[in-house]
Amino acid sequence: MSQFDNVSVIKEANVYFDGKCVSHTVIQADGTRKSVGVILPAKLVFNTGAPEIMELLAGQCRVTLAGETESKTYGGGQSFDVPGNSSFEIEVTETLHYVCHFG
Amino acid sequence: MSQFDNVSVIKEANVYFDGKCVSHTVIQADGTRKSVGVILPAKLVFNTGAPEIMELLAGQCRVTLAGETESKTYGGGQSFDVPGNSSFEIEVTETLHYVCHFG
Repeated sequence: MSQFDNVSVIKEANVYFDGKCVSHTVIQADGTRKSVGVILPAKLVFNTGAPEIMELLAGQCRVTLAGETESKTYGGGQSFDVPGNSSFEIEVTETLHYVCHFG
Repeated sequence: MSQFDNVSVIKEANVYFDGKCVSHTVIQADGTRKSVGVILPAKLVFNTGAPEIMELLAGQCRVTLAGETESKTYGGGQSFDVPGNSSFEIEVTETLHYVCHFG
């Protein structure tokens, strides 16, 4: 599915790292929050509160989870899990379009 | 209202000008399309197809419509109209959060 239906959208975006990451919050009918966003080519470290599933729609990146030494490469159509209260380093090599699922 | 309710959202973002402008398309229950987005500090020229109303949620910019010589300054809580099949130059001086209404 290329779209979410029957949702609410927060009009104002979330802007991180001087705009290298821009997302919008989407609230599903059951109250679940997700975000849809873009990460531009850059090397960034994100911290997590809740566990996250990063579903990649398009683009390419290398991800190193906290405590790991080797990075893994992911692209459109793939996803990766991040534990809660953790962090991950992401090197985006091709603009990344994603849906972030929490919890 | 800080959010749209009962809408569809296209998951993949629209990325313009190397990411200086990132928006997501929102489809209202009646089929009307709008976009919610961000423009980072930059001086850009946008072309319009349909007429647009740019509703500014936050930020600051100077806008010069095609055929005009003087710019006007707009900020959060304000909006400006752009004719169809035209263009406008926008100089964003503080990251702009907007809703774009078409037609």
